[in-house]
Amino acid sequence: MPYRAPIDDILFTMNHAAGMKEGLASGVYHDLADDFARTLLTEAAKYAEEVLDPVNKAGDQHGSRLVDGEVKTAPGWKDAYAKWHEGGWAGVVTPQEHGGMGLPHLLNSACFEMWTAANMAFMLCPCLSFGAVDALIAHGSKELQQTWLPRLVTGEWPATMNLTEPQAGSDLNALRAKAERAANGTYRISGQKIFITYGDHDMSANIVHLVLARLPDAPVGTRGISLFVVPKFLLNADGTPGARNDVKCVGLEHKMGIHGSPTCVMSYGESEGAVGWIVGEENRGLACMFTMMNAARLAVGLQGVAMGERAYQHALVYAHERRQGRAASYAGEGMAPIIHHPDVRRNLMTMKALTHAARAICYLTADATDRSHRLADEAARKRAGERVALLTPIAKAFSTDIGNEVASIGVQIHGGMGFIEETGAAQFMRDARIAAIYEGTNGIQAIDLVQRKLPMGGGDVVRREIVDMRATLDRLDEVNAPEFGAMAPRLREAVAALERATEWMLGKLGASVEEALAGATPYLRLFGFARGGVSLAELALAERAGGRAGGAIATARFFAEQIAVGAAGLEAGVTQGAAGVLNSLAALDVAS
Amino acid sequence: MPYRAPIDDILFTMNHAAGMKEGLASGVYHDLADDFARTLLTEAAKYAEEVLDPVNKAGDQHGSRLVDGEVKTAPGWKDAYAKWHEGGWAGVVTPQEHGGMGLPHLLNSACFEMWTAANMAFMLCPCLSFGAVDALIAHGSKELQQTWLPRLVTGEWPATMNLTEPQAGSDLNALRAKAERAANGTYRISGQKIFITYGDHDMSANIVHLVLARLPDAPVGTRGISLFVVPKFLLNADGTPGARNDVKCVGLEHKMGIHGSPTCVMSYGESEGAVGWIVGEENRGLACMFTMMNAARLAVGLQGVAMGERAYQHALVYAHERRQGRAASYAGEGMAPIIHHPDVRRNLMTMKALTHAARAICYLTADATDRSHRLADEAARKRAGERVALLTPIAKAFSTDIGNEVASIGVQIHGGMGFIEETGAAQFMRDARIAAIYEGTNGIQAIDLVQRKLPMGGGDVVRREIVDMRATLDRLDEVNAPEFGAMAPRLREAVAALERATEWMLGKLGASVEEALAGATPYLRLFGFARGGVSLAELALAERAGGRAGGAIATARFFAEQIAVGAAGLEAGVTQGAAGVLNSLAALDVAS
Repeated sequence: MPYRAPIDDILFTMNHAAGMKEGLASGVYHDLADDFARTLLTEAAKYAEEVLDPVNKAGDQHGSRLVDGEVKTAPGWKDAYAKWHEGGWAGVVTPQEHGGMGLPHLLNSACFEMWTAANMAFMLCPCLSFGAVDALIAHGSKELQQTWLPRLVTGEWPATMNLTEPQAGSDLNALRAKAERAANGTYRISGQKIFITYGDHDMSANIVHLVLARLPDAPVGTRGISLFVVPKFLLNADGTPGARNDVKCVGLEHKMGIHGSPTCVMSYGESEGAVGWIVGEENRGLACMFTMMNAARLAVGLQGVAMGERAYQHALVYAHERRQGRAASYAGEGMAPIIHHPDVRRNLMTMKALTHAARAICYLTADATDRSHRLADEAARKRAGERVALLTPIAKAFSTDIGNEVASIGVQIHGGMGFIEETGAAQFMRDARIAAIYEGTNGIQAIDLVQRKLPMGGGDVVRREIVDMRATLDRLDEVNAPEFGAMAPRLREAVAALERATEWMLGKLGASVEEALAGATPYLRLFGFARGGVSLAELALAERAGGRAGGAIATARFFAEQIAVGAAGLEAGVTQGAAGVLNSLAALDVAS
Repeated sequence: MPYRAPIDDILFTMNHAAGMKEGLASGVYHDLADDFARTLLTEAAKYAEEVLDPVNKAGDQHGSRLVDGEVKTAPGWKDAYAKWHEGGWAGVVTPQEHGGMGLPHLLNSACFEMWTAANMAFMLCPCLSFGAVDALIAHGSKELQQTWLPRLVTGEWPATMNLTEPQAGSDLNALRAKAERAANGTYRISGQKIFITYGDHDMSANIVHLVLARLPDAPVGTRGISLFVVPKFLLNADGTPGARNDVKCVGLEHKMGIHGSPTCVMSYGESEGAVGWIVGEENRGLACMFTMMNAARLAVGLQGVAMGERAYQHALVYAHERRQGRAASYAGEGMAPIIHHPDVRRNLMTMKALTHAARAICYLTADATDRSHRLADEAARKRAGERVALLTPIAKAFSTDIGNEVASIGVQIHGGMGFIEETGAAQFMRDARIAAIYEGTNGIQAIDLVQRKLPMGGGDVVRREIVDMRATLDRLDEVNAPEFGAMAPRLREAVAALERATEWMLGKLGASVEEALAGATPYLRLFGFARGGVSLAELALAERAGGRAGGAIATARFFAEQIAVGAAGLEAGVTQGAAGVLNSLAALDVAS
C-alpha cells in the first residue's frame, strides 16, 4: 500500500497543538504567508510519495552491500538522492546567510516526518546533515564553514556522525580514537568507529564525516574529546573531490531493519592518518556534539511518529478491505470488513491516538525551537529554549516507544499476513525498532529528563509546562458535549499524577538520586501520557470550534479514556516502587 | 549465549504456583515419585541444550528452502529430529494404552517450554503432533488409531494442521477445500491451504496431514466441515511409506521470524484428488479441531514464556558483562556493568516478572488439565475442566503478548548491539512475534474469554477463580515482612479491579455484547495482571517459607508494585471506555 502524506492532519497539528496558527497571527512567523506551509508540504509530500516510497521496499530486500571496499546502495537510491539534492530539501531550516531557506523547524519537522514515513532507511542519510550544519554554524571557523557548508546545505554531499566505538557507546568517556596535530593546522585521525550510519555509500561524490577523537595531551574523560571534519575525498584547489582520504568502510552490520541504510565499521588512519580539520576548540568537541544531538533527538522522535503513521495507514486500509466473520455494526452482505469488530477498532484507535499524541509532542518541541530563535523578547526566547530542553527527551523516547508499539499492533491487525514480509507491515516494525535505541537509548532519555531537565530553574521549567497543560484543561472543562466523554476528568487525573510524580522527583533529586533514576522510565511515559493527551485535547477543541472533521475529538477521547488512564499506575510505580527496583540486584544474579 | 534450562525455577513454579507439590501429596500424581519431575526435566533439558539450541541460529540464517518441489530444512535439523524420535519425547502425555508415557500435561508443558526456548522454530514441527494425537484418540476410528497413532506417538512421523485458506483465516465458515466420497470408504481431498507449518520437510519419512474440508452435500458454515487424515505418502501393506499422495507444497512464505520453520502453501488434489480418511463423523470436523486447538493454545502460550525466558537470559548475561558509565551501586574499578544502572535493572526485572507470571499462568492451566483427567471426584474433574477453559485464552494471549514485550526489552538492553542480528536478541524478538497471531489471534482469545468463558456456569467459573486468588491474598496479608513491600495491597487492588470488571462484563453480556467486546483485550490483560501477580505471590510465600532463594519475593514485589498497578487503568478502559471504542468508526475512515 503506497504511503499517502497526511497533510491535513499534519497542518492541523501544526496549527492547533503546536503554535503555527498563533505564530502566524502574532508575527513569530512574520516571514511566511498563511498558505505557505500547505504549499511547501504539498511539494515535500510529492517527494515522499513519488520518489522515496517507491524505492523503500527495494532497500529492505536488497539492502546495502560492501563490494570491493565500497558500499553500494539499493536500486533506485542513488537517483532518489540526486532528487533530494535537486529539490534543495537539505536546506529548509538553514539560515539564508548560509545558503538555506531559513524556514521554521516546525516546517522541516513536518516534511521530515513525511519523508521518513515514506522511506526511513533512506532518510537517515540526509538527516545526519541537519546536525552537522548546526554544529558547523555554531562552532566551525569561517574557513571551515566556507569550505563545507555550501555542499552540505544544498545536500550535494551528506555528513555522517562518528561517535561510537566498541567500548564507548552510551559512555563517551571511554572514547579512544586518536587525533595528532599536523604541521599545517590540520590533524591526523586514526582509530575505529562502529555503527556509523551511511559511513560509506555511492549516492554522492563526497561524504563529510564528523569524527570525535582525542588529542595526545587531552584530559581524560569527555573533557578531552575534540570534533573533526574528515572528508571521504580531500578537495582539489577548485573545491572538487580529489585524493581519497585515509578512511574506509571495513564492514557492514547485518541488522534487524533499516536494511537499506548501511551501518558501517569505519577505519580511520590505517596508513598515514586521515586528514581532519578541527570544529571549534580542542577538547571542546562534546559541546559541538551536543549541538548536533539535540536536533537529532527530535528527528529520531519524528521517526517514531512517521513509522506509527505508516503502520497505521497500512493497517487501516487492510481493516477496511479484509473480511472475516460477522459484526453487529455491519449490515452488508457476506463477511464483515474486520474494522467492524470492536477489538480491531480498539487496535486502530490505539495506533491513531498514540501516533497523533507523539506527533503533537514532537511538533510542540519543534515549535519551541523556532520560538527560542524567533521571539523578540530575550526572556521569552530563553523560556522557549528551556522548553525545548525539557521536551526533547520526551519527544525522542515517548515517540519511539510508541512507534514500536504501533508498528507491532499494525502487524497484529494483519493477522498471519502481518508476519509475511511481502505484506509490508513487518518491515515497518523492524525498521521502527532502532529508533528507541540510537541517539541515546530511551533509558538514557529518561535519565536525561529526570536528572538534567527537571532541575532546570529549580523545577520552574517543568512546573511551567504543567501550568500550560492546566490552561487547556480549564478550556476543556467548559465543553460539556457528550462526544467528549470523560476526556476532561481523565486528563485532569493524568496531569495531577504527573504533578505529584514531578514533585516527588524534584524532592528525591537532592536526597536520593538513585530512587529518582529507578522511576525515570515510567515518569517519562507518564509525561508523554499527560502532555500527549492534553495536546490531543487541544486538537479536539479546535475541531469542535469548526476546524475540521478529522476525528480529532474521537481520537482525544480514546487517548484519555483508554491510554491516559494508565497515569495513576505509572505514578505509583515512580513514587512507591523505587525500593523494589533498587533492591533487585540479588534477584538478577545470573545463577538465579 | 547458549540456553540454560532454568530447571529450578520451573520446578519451583510447578510445585508452588501450579499444583504439583499438592498433587504429589494428595495422590493426583500417584504414579510419580517425588523426584521424578527433576529427573525427567534434566533429560529434557539436555535435549534442549545439547541438540536443539546448537542448531537454532542455523535455522534462522539458512531457513527452510523449497527445492524441486521438496522442502529442505536447515543444516543439522534432520539429525535433531531423529534425536526427538529416539528420545521418545513425542509421547510424554499420551496414555500408555496408546504407546505413550502417560505423564502429566504439567510435565510436558515444562519440557515444551525448555525445548521451545532452545529452538522455537524447530519445536513447531513436533508440537503439532500433540494435538493430532489428542484428536485421533478422541475422535478417530480404531482402524485409524491403529494405523497412525504408533508413528505419531513415537514421533517417527509428525503431523500438520491444515485449516487456513486465503479467504478463511479466523473465520472457518468461509472454508472451501473439498472432500468427495470414494468407493472404499476413503475420500478425495482437493483445494489450497495456506500458512501450513511444516507442510513439507525432509526430517521424517512421512507426514500426517490433518485437513479440514467440506463434503459436496455439507451444510454451509462450520457445521459442514469435516476433518481428514491425509498422509504425504500412502502406506504399503506392511505399513511403510509407499506411493506419493496427491498433495504437495507449492510455495514457502518469507517471514519475519521462525525462518527455520517452513510455512507452506499446500495444494491438495491437483491430479486425481488426495486420498484421505475421515476423523470422526462427517460434518463434525470442527469438534475434532477444537480438541486439537485447546492443547495448541496452551502450547502457544508456552512459546511466549519460552521466548521471554530466552530473551531474559540473553539480556541478563549481557547486562552483567557490558560496562558503560558509573553507577552508585558499583564500587569496582572502571566502568560499571550496566546492571548497576537502575533503569537497566528495571528493564531486567520487568522481563523476569512478566515471564515468571506468564509461566505460572500456563503451568496452572496445564495442572488444571491434569486434574480434569485425574481427580477422583467427577464434580472436581468438571470444575478443573472449566478452569482449563477459562484460563486457556489468558495463557495463550497474555503469555504471547508479554513474550513480545519481553523480547523487545531484551533487544533494548543490548543497545545498538541488540539491533545487530549476530547478537541473537533480534531473532528472539522476530521469532516470538508470530505467537500472538497464530492459533487464534490474541484479539480472538480475548473475545473467547469474554463471550464464551465468562458466562460458564452463569459466571461461577470466573468467580471461583477470583475466590481462589483472594485465598492467597489472605495468606499474604499475614506476612508483614519489609521485603514484601506493597505486594499485598497492590495485588488486592488488582483483584478487586478484576472483580468489578468481571461483574461489569457479565452484566453487559446479556444486555450489550458489543460494549463487552470493546473491552475484551484490556480485560484479558487485567486478568493476566491479577492472576499472574497472585501466582507470583504464591512463589514469594513459598520462598519465605524456606523454599529457595531464587528472587521470588523480589520478583513478585516488582510485579505488584510496577506492573499490577496498571490494573485500575485497565478497569477504567473496560468499564468506562466502551462508547469511545464503539463510536470510533467515523474517526477511522480511510480518508480522515
